[in-house]
Amino acid sequence: MKTSVFYLSDSTGITVETLATSLFSHFDTLEINPIRRPNLSGIEDIKKVAEEISQAARESESPTIVFSSLISEESREVLRACPCELYDIYDLFIKPMENKLGIKSSAITGRSHGIGETKEYNRRMNAINFCMANDDGENILNFEKADIIIIGVSRTGKTPTSLYLALNHSLNIANYPLTNEDLESDKLPDILKPFKSKLFGLTINPTRLQQIRHERRPNSQYSSLSQCQYEIRTAEVLYRQTRIPFIDTSSISIEEISVAILNNKHLLTNIVNNFND
Amino acid sequence: MKTSVFYLSDSTGITVETLATSLFSHFDTLEINPIRRPNLSGIEDIKKVAEEISQAARESESPTIVFSSLISEESREVLRACPCELYDIYDLFIKPMENKLGIKSSAITGRSHGIGETKEYNRRMNAINFCMANDDGENILNFEKADIIIIGVSRTGKTPTSLYLALNHSLNIANYPLTNEDLESDKLPDILKPFKSKLFGLTINPTRLQQIRHERRPNSQYSSLSQCQYEIRTAEVLYRQTRIPFIDTSSISIEEISVAILNNKHLLTNIVNNFND
Repeated sequence: MKTSVFYLSDSTGITVETLATSLFSHFDTLEINPIRRPNLSGIEDIKKVAEEISQAARESESPTIVFSSLISEESREVLRACPCELYDIYDLFIKPMENKLGIKSSAITGRSHGIGETKEYNRRMNAINFCMANDDGENILNFEKADIIIIGVSRTGKTPTSLYLALNHSLNIANYPLTNEDLESDKLPDILKPFKSKLFGLTINPTRLQQIRHERRPNSQYSSLSQCQYEIRTAEVLYRQTRIPFIDTSSISIEEISVAILNNKHLLTNIVNNFND
Repeated sequence: MKTSVFYLSDSTGITVETLATSLFSHFDTLEINPIRRPNLSGIEDIKKVAEEISQAARESESPTIVFSSLISEESREVLRACPCELYDIYDLFIKPMENKLGIKSSAITGRSHGIGETKEYNRRMNAINFCMANDDGENILNFEKADIIIIGVSRTGKTPTSLYLALNHSLNIANYPLTNEDLESDKLPDILKPFKSKLFGLTINPTRLQQIRHERRPNSQYSSLSQCQYEIRTAEVLYRQTRIPFIDTSSISIEEISVAILNNKHLLTNIVNNFND
């Protein structure tokens, strides 16, 4: 029996869905049926959704759950009358924050972002372009403009981590793959030496690396366990000898790697948030 | 006077920070000083943070705000004694959900993701690799494997939107730039014809496009207003004639474009969430 979960919003609904997804990870056995209703703009929209909620509640023995970031009092009034477990972001957070801070919320829904936030938009776009252009050491001349340079052997998670940090924190991230040649030389590649303070290393369990590489190039030297063991062992020695901070990515997510890097580099950027609901 | 805002978590803290960033967008005049304390693992960690909170409260006239996704009752007890406005995700959501659903939360903090979730991890990595390999029509043979193909003239937002959808929804996104040659032909490029149902078009205000292009190649034909006007006008005619759904990206964010595409294509994927806190 799946539990119906509604995400209601006058904008994208990404905030409530991200929050709820995180909450549901604490309930292993729960199977959910997500129902997204973004861009709700008037009382007629809300009444239609209220009818959908009532129908879901009638058809299921499991409670119907509603996460809402709607702002209008009239809309929230309609929701409160629905047969559901309602989590209303406005009541839970905005109202208490108004009281505590002594200021009114602007209560502007679905605000557009193009004009006033052009600077922030451009910063984000530039970071994404920088990241794409500096993936896999493609354009090493740009290391000077990088905020962080992620290093590691092939398939340790450099590219997805770089993209995550560019998209979510508008940082200029370059990444550099440690090649066999680099590893055999037993010291930091010359090209990286001027930027030591920007470096962050990734490592991984050799067996896990083998699995990942096997999917890309099955039964190759590249994906052999001995090759993976050699590369990882040598890269870790290099990190330790040159005191480059590093993290094992075997059993953590891109998000967790990113937070570790930000903390290590003391980069206190805010999360880019352009959906405001 | 900046308001100190603490993000406490036994894992990454991304959930509370994303939520709070969204909430603060409703308070235009509020200036915040974010203080991240992820990976809090024992009562000694919490006591140290509690001391930091008390100090922040002493030093400021503005209320100190704390967002916490800590699970342990002992830790939350310490927080409740702090001189701050506390938003405790466990109390606000997990506990009521347990009661309503009649099941206990697993209360496992900082869970690792490497082993059980290899399949989901691989799907996400493959989507990111697909997106990188199929950016700007580079590898058109792969359109068959694409979930969505985003089209538009240069600098309308194709690449960042593709990356966002790959990272957050593990979808295979290709994108194809409409060239002058395509536009002059006045019909859908042959290469796209077999995949019409996968196409989604982006458009933009020509003046905005000019600004964006000007930053890339100042004073060029490429960034002239007349060129931007011609390309946008012709692309929009093409979208309408061939009935390709499209959206104007002039004043909306990557997140908003992404939600519009997902809704249009009825892709009900869940948000990828690998940080669970």
